[in-house]
Amino acid sequence: MNFYAVVYYLGWVVEVLGFSLLMPSFVGLFYHESVWFIYLIAAVCCLAIGTLFIIKKPKYSFFYAKEGFVTVALAWLIMSLIGAIPFHVSGEIPSFLDAFFESASGFSTTGASILTDIPALSHAALFWRSFTHWIGGMGVLVFLLAILPASGGGSMQLMKAESPGPSIGKFVPKIRETAMILYVLYTVMTILETIFLLFGGMPWFDAITTAFATAGTGGFSIRSSSIAFYNSAYIEIVITVFMLLFGVNFSIYYLILTKRIREVRDNEEIRAYGLIVLVSIAVVVLNISRMPVYDHNIPLAVKDSAFSVATLVSSTGFGTVDYNQWPQLSKAIFFVLMFIGSSAGSTGGGLKVQRILILLKSSLSEIGQLVHPRSVRSATIDKRKIDNRVIRQTKSYFVIFMLIYITSVLIVSLDDFDMTTSLTSVIATLNNIGPGLGLVGPKGGYAEFSALSKIVFIFDMIAGRLELLPMLVLFSPTVIKDTSAALARRSPLKRKKLKRID
Amino acid sequence: MNFYAVVYYLGWVVEVLGFSLLMPSFVGLFYHESVWFIYLIAAVCCLAIGTLFIIKKPKYSFFYAKEGFVTVALAWLIMSLIGAIPFHVSGEIPSFLDAFFESASGFSTTGASILTDIPALSHAALFWRSFTHWIGGMGVLVFLLAILPASGGGSMQLMKAESPGPSIGKFVPKIRETAMILYVLYTVMTILETIFLLFGGMPWFDAITTAFATAGTGGFSIRSSSIAFYNSAYIEIVITVFMLLFGVNFSIYYLILTKRIREVRDNEEIRAYGLIVLVSIAVVVLNISRMPVYDHNIPLAVKDSAFSVATLVSSTGFGTVDYNQWPQLSKAIFFVLMFIGSSAGSTGGGLKVQRILILLKSSLSEIGQLVHPRSVRSATIDKRKIDNRVIRQTKSYFVIFMLIYITSVLIVSLDDFDMTTSLTSVIATLNNIGPGLGLVGPKGGYAEFSALSKIVFIFDMIAGRLELLPMLVLFSPTVIKDTSAALARRSPLKRKKLKRID
Repeated sequence: MNFYAVVYYLGWVVEVLGFSLLMPSFVGLFYHESVWFIYLIAAVCCLAIGTLFIIKKPKYSFFYAKEGFVTVALAWLIMSLIGAIPFHVSGEIPSFLDAFFESASGFSTTGASILTDIPALSHAALFWRSFTHWIGGMGVLVFLLAILPASGGGSMQLMKAESPGPSIGKFVPKIRETAMILYVLYTVMTILETIFLLFGGMPWFDAITTAFATAGTGGFSIRSSSIAFYNSAYIEIVITVFMLLFGVNFSIYYLILTKRIREVRDNEEIRAYGLIVLVSIAVVVLNISRMPVYDHNIPLAVKDSAFSVATLVSSTGFGTVDYNQWPQLSKAIFFVLMFIGSSAGSTGGGLKVQRILILLKSSLSEIGQLVHPRSVRSATIDKRKIDNRVIRQTKSYFVIFMLIYITSVLIVSLDDFDMTTSLTSVIATLNNIGPGLGLVGPKGGYAEFSALSKIVFIFDMIAGRLELLPMLVLFSPTVIKDTSAALARRSPLKRKKLKRID
Repeated sequence: MNFYAVVYYLGWVVEVLGFSLLMPSFVGLFYHESVWFIYLIAAVCCLAIGTLFIIKKPKYSFFYAKEGFVTVALAWLIMSLIGAIPFHVSGEIPSFLDAFFESASGFSTTGASILTDIPALSHAALFWRSFTHWIGGMGVLVFLLAILPASGGGSMQLMKAESPGPSIGKFVPKIRETAMILYVLYTVMTILETIFLLFGGMPWFDAITTAFATAGTGGFSIRSSSIAFYNSAYIEIVITVFMLLFGVNFSIYYLILTKRIREVRDNEEIRAYGLIVLVSIAVVVLNISRMPVYDHNIPLAVKDSAFSVATLVSSTGFGTVDYNQWPQLSKAIFFVLMFIGSSAGSTGGGLKVQRILILLKSSLSEIGQLVHPRSVRSATIDKRKIDNRVIRQTKSYFVIFMLIYITSVLIVSLDDFDMTTSLTSVIATLNNIGPGLGLVGPKGGYAEFSALSKIVFIFDMIAGRLELLPMLVLFSPTVIKDTSAALARRSPLKRKKLKRID
């Protein structure tokens, strides 16, 4: 394995994190909070350490899928660890594990929190929490690809490893330009949401942090009661719309901007995503309209059900009402939505609508083949035959996903919470949603779980954000063997050059 | 479609059912119960109607996969409907839907019951309930294949459609002999269990019905408190062992009898099955040993946990203790075991250990390929490369399984029971287990569900027993179109002869 290249990219990640940490430091200074200094020191340390590793470009530029996965997995672990330091050092989150959980939850855009008194935090910490969502939403390495000059082979592997969805959407032939377009779209949409929120009378600080959390489909709020705090239908509607928008494949926006409307109309994922959202809202409205609180008030039921559907399907996790109190059918729909998630190529989490389409279409066509052995119909998406390789990989992904899900549920069950809590807390972290049902519902949190469960959640949050593979590869026997051998000999490349690099 | 051949086989199924109904009639006569006459009339009607359809062999012998699936699906629907008639006519189960549910639960070897006062039933009804398990366990069509002279093409398609597991195990080249060997093994093992139970002091009637229910991995008991009624460690241990034995692939027994021990030792499924059972028992024992009732009594904990693991993994569903009261980890393990189920080629239900092995091995090797694109390692089972076709079909099966599971959970959620009840009642019926957790736990039942939920459960029970495909094909658009066209023209074959048969 090319450890030098891995370390080089990690140096850049730490560098970017250093610049990012300057922002909460300014916020702290602005609000006259003493913690500003802690953030400043953290920033300076990151910048110094990062620089150490990036001054020399690695000699060997080979960079394969394995290097890509390892870099991305390590980058996210390091980001989460560094991000936790100011929370811990400032004493705002006394336990380091809790701080690590909060930071991993931020970067992975999960939005699950161990905090019980959020407004007690400093503005700097609140800002940092929300800003980690924004960084994590589009990805640090995608950001690096946008600013770094293209270097041999690595770009594609990094993009593959960090971007969500069964296939990466390259808008333009050059990865660097694609990454730039993504970040421009992302920034513009975040600014737009901030403006809309300001129009609704939200204070500046709230508007910016809320927009960060929506853009990354994260879900951290600076208020204990989340969006319910603002008690404004206008604000809820704006956030509903933007949560759904950030759950759309960004290539759709690029197609719209370049006036390729026909391609948008033919895109099956966006139609399926829209259908899932609309049908879910409709059924939930019918289901909750019997409740006394929604009696004769269909608009209220629509608003609340649309917000809840949007927050779960986009994997954001903001809360307005406690849907834990809703009838079982609504909760079952929410549980299913938590698995499905948003579109591929969005900032949202989940299995992704695109994967669900591939799974269902290819499986139904496979079954059809059994009944009509002589037919040769193949499953299609967007009028093109789905590649067999993509089908195989998507199905393997689904199996591995369920394996990680089940294993996590078994470990978390040791805490002896009820089944709904165990089942939904794991999916809420693995798919980067945040709140689930039961004790981790919109009014609950993750504070009461054991250390072991929190470690499982941290793994799941990062694994989920990176679509499983990088974390699995990082902890795979071959990588562990390579690394320990390299550490033992201190010259990994020499040894590897003798063997063929795989 | 060759409707004549389908109807011919269905005639034979009704004929077999007629003979089967004579048995509870004798039982009723023996116990001087007036219901004996109802079973006799039902038997005579079945024999008469069945004979009508089997006197003339169909002219056209073509019989493809589609015909096989449709025959098997219709056979099981008809069996369940006919089996329900005596329950309903005798007034012992007043609602016909409930009687249908009970009968489908019997034939599908589920063992879920809508009855609240089981011992109030006549001996004839109790016997019939248990006997449906025995018929359903190995399958009526497999039985027919054993007794009917081989007829062109149909045997293989019927065997494929009714037998469980990703691939059918043919012990010997001839299907008829394979079917005979299966039924001989099945009968001998049932007799063995009866003898063992009689040794434990169980009354004759209890021993026979319990053996029927164990053999089919059904789970109906003639006692309200199920096996707990007998309050005997010996009986519980005998049943535990036989539940596990009936969950083993029957080809293992054939291999043992023909002294091919090496093949048994190399069989990965039996090892995995054993491992799953042992690890589950061990973890559950550790988990429940903290409970006051098991304090300092490890043998009791082992006995109870082994029974519960065996009853769920084999999909039998007998009850001794109320594991609803156990800690969450044990319940989570049980929930997972409910999905996994028993071995392929056994009488048990579930996804099957073989499928789980194929899913995991092929997916992990697929992931490995992503990391090492140049490696060409393939997944193997029993030292042979797993066929790509089998992998594709198994993965499609898993996706379709989850689709049916989720759809059923959503519909059942309309009844507004808690999430644990909704999630486990569906898996307990779909995988033919019987009891689940929550309201459908060992002390609960299915009486309180709505008519809609019961219809969903009936579909799931039969679909699960037949491994989904037959029921899906029966309700597929092509079959419905074929059938309505045939009914409209009254001469399906003439029309079909013009077109190519697919």
